[in-house]
Amino acid sequence: LTNRMFSIKKLDSSDEEIIKEKINKKTKPIGSLGKLEHLALKLALITGKEKIKLHNPTLLIFAGDHGIAKENISIAPSKVTKQMVLNFLNGGAAINCFCNENKIAIEVIDAGILSPLDNEPRLTSQRLGPGTKNFINTKAMSMETVIKGLKFGANNSYKHADSGCNVIGFGEMGIGNTSSAAAIMKALTNSDLDECVGRGSGIDEPTFKKKLALIKQALEFHSSNLTNPKDILSAVGGFEIVQMVGAMLAAAEKKMIILVDGFIASAAALVATKMYPESKDYMVFCHRSQELGHRKMLRIMDVDPLLSLDMRLGEGTGAAIAYPLLKAAACFYNEMASFETAGIKEI
Amino acid sequence: LTNRMFSIKKLDSSDEEIIKEKINKKTKPIGSLGKLEHLALKLALITGKEKIKLHNPTLLIFAGDHGIAKENISIAPSKVTKQMVLNFLNGGAAINCFCNENKIAIEVIDAGILSPLDNEPRLTSQRLGPGTKNFINTKAMSMETVIKGLKFGANNSYKHADSGCNVIGFGEMGIGNTSSAAAIMKALTNSDLDECVGRGSGIDEPTFKKKLALIKQALEFHSSNLTNPKDILSAVGGFEIVQMVGAMLAAAEKKMIILVDGFIASAAALVATKMYPESKDYMVFCHRSQELGHRKMLRIMDVDPLLSLDMRLGEGTGAAIAYPLLKAAACFYNEMASFETAGIKEI
Repeated sequence: LTNRMFSIKKLDSSDEEIIKEKINKKTKPIGSLGKLEHLALKLALITGKEKIKLHNPTLLIFAGDHGIAKENISIAPSKVTKQMVLNFLNGGAAINCFCNENKIAIEVIDAGILSPLDNEPRLTSQRLGPGTKNFINTKAMSMETVIKGLKFGANNSYKHADSGCNVIGFGEMGIGNTSSAAAIMKALTNSDLDECVGRGSGIDEPTFKKKLALIKQALEFHSSNLTNPKDILSAVGGFEIVQMVGAMLAAAEKKMIILVDGFIASAAALVATKMYPESKDYMVFCHRSQELGHRKMLRIMDVDPLLSLDMRLGEGTGAAIAYPLLKAAACFYNEMASFETAGIKEI
Repeated sequence: LTNRMFSIKKLDSSDEEIIKEKINKKTKPIGSLGKLEHLALKLALITGKEKIKLHNPTLLIFAGDHGIAKENISIAPSKVTKQMVLNFLNGGAAINCFCNENKIAIEVIDAGILSPLDNEPRLTSQRLGPGTKNFINTKAMSMETVIKGLKFGANNSYKHADSGCNVIGFGEMGIGNTSSAAAIMKALTNSDLDECVGRGSGIDEPTFKKKLALIKQALEFHSSNLTNPKDILSAVGGFEIVQMVGAMLAAAEKKMIILVDGFIASAAALVATKMYPESKDYMVFCHRSQELGHRKMLRIMDVDPLLSLDMRLGEGTGAAIAYPLLKAAACFYNEMASFETAGIKEI
C-alpha cells in the first residue's frame, strides 16, 4: 500500500444525514427533485455541507492514436485525430460550443497522436509515442509507458486543482479508441464480447464484424497478460485512456468532482475504480452513450448517468452538456427556501 | 373553421433538407449528437434555417386551486397553493433557482387560487374563481369560464411574443391538479384509469386508492359530457390547466418555442393538440415526470422528452432545467465548424 501512486480517501459520509435533512426541508415534497437530490447530496459531501461550491470547471480532452486503426475498423483514418485536435484548438468542434455556452475551460492534450503538431502553444504535449502499437498481436504500450501516462495525466489534474478548479471533466479524441475501450471492458468485466463492442462513430455491418473478430483475436493473444488493470492498459489500452485514468485518480485524490463522459471516458473510469474503488465516490456519470457497450458498463459499475440523449461523439460533449445540471443541483441546495424561511407548514 | 379562436399554422418544413444538410456537414460523425440534432432541426424550422434564435426565454407559472382537494387526496391542503405562489414571488422555490441560473424570466399567474393575494403587483391576476368546483359530482367550471380561461392564457403568450420572447415555458402549481390531469388524460385517450392516476407529490396507498375511486366516480358522472376537449375542461379541468391550454395555443399561433414541463403541463399540451394538432409542431417536451401517467401520456402523444430525472415537482422545473439543452442545440447549429471550414475531409 505504501507503494501506491495515489492517496485517495473514501468520501467522508459523516455529514450525509445533515445534508439530507437540509434537502428535505426545502419547499418541495420530499424526493420530488429526483436525481438532482442525489446529485446535490454527492456534491455537498464532496465540497461542503453548508454550500455546494463549483469552481473553475475545466474539461480535459486527451487525444491519442491507435495502432489498431490500421485495420480500417473506423469510419475515418487516424489522421482525423490530428485534424480534430486542430479543430478543438480553433474552437470549431461541438465540445467548444458546449464549453463556451456553459463557461467551462478546455485543455487539449496530445497524449500521443500519430504525428505531433509543432509550434502549437495552445496544445499541451504529453506524447507517449506516435500512436499505440496495433494490439492485435503486440502490446499497445510498455508498462513503463503506462506508468508514465498515469503520471502525465495526474499532473493535469494537480495543475488544475492548484488553480482552484474543483470540477474536472474528461473527454477524448482518438480514431480507433472504441476498440481499445471495448477490449478493456471485456478484460475487466464478465461481459460477453458482443456486449462490449459497438459501432463506434457509425461503421457498417461487415466492418463491425471485422472489428469484433479482431478484438476477440487480440484478447486471446493477450489472455495470459490481463490480470490487473495496468497490465490490461499495457496490452490493449490507449495513450488517451491511460492518461485519463491517471488524471481521474489524481482528481479523486484532490477531492475534485469528476465528470465522466461516454464510453471511452467510462472505460478509463472503470480502470480507475478497479485500481482505487474509492475514486468512484468523486465521479458523476454524465451521459449514456449510444455506443453499444456503455449501458452495460454503467450497469456493472452500478451508476446511473444524468443524461441519455443518444449521443456518441466523445470529446467530453456529454460532460459539458450535463454541467448545467450540477449548477441546478448546487443552486437549489444553496439558495432554495426551507419551509421555515418561507413560512410554510411542511408538506 | 372561421369561428376558431386560434390561427395556428403547421410548421413549414420546406427548409428541412437544407437544415439537415447543415447539421450533417458539422465536424462530427453523422447523427452523433443524437437528440440534440433532432432538437436543432425543430428549433431551426421554427426560428430560421440560418441561425437558431432563442430570445427572452420566459416561464409562465399558472396557479389554481381544485375543489377535489377537499377530498384530502393530496399530501397538502389547498392553502399550500397560495403559500407556494408567495414563495415563487419571493424567489424561494426550486423554479426560481433554476430560472435564475439559466436566465429565464418568470411570470406568476393567479388563475384562480382559493383566496386572492391582495396588493401583490408581482402577481398577474387572471382569476377564474376561488378554485374549481369539486368535479366528483359537478362540473369543475362552466363553458363560459373555459372560454374566458383560454383567452386569459392566450393573452399571456401574446404579451410575451410582443416583447420579443420566442421561447415560452409552462409550469403550474395547484394542490389536487394531478387528479384533474389524470381525469383529462383518461377522457382524451384510450388508457385504463389506473394508467392515468398516480401518487402526485407522494400520497400513501390508502389515499391513492381513494383518489383512484373518486376519479372513476367523477368520470362516470360526467360520461355523457366528455366528447370534446372543451367539454372535458369544463367537466374535470383546472383553472391553471385551461389557461395553460390557451397560452400554449397562442404561443403556437405566434410560432414560439413551447417548453412543456411534466404531467400537468403535458395534460394541457394534450388538450391543446387535440384542439389544434398542428400546435404540437412548436412543442418541446422537456422532462418525463415520475408521476405514473406521464410516460404513457408522452407515448400516446408520440413524443420523447429531453430529460428523465425522476422529478415530480411541477412549477415548470423540468422546462427550466432542460433549457440549457436548447442553448446547446442552438450553439452547435449556429457556431460549430463544418468539415469545409475546418479543412477536414468528411468522416
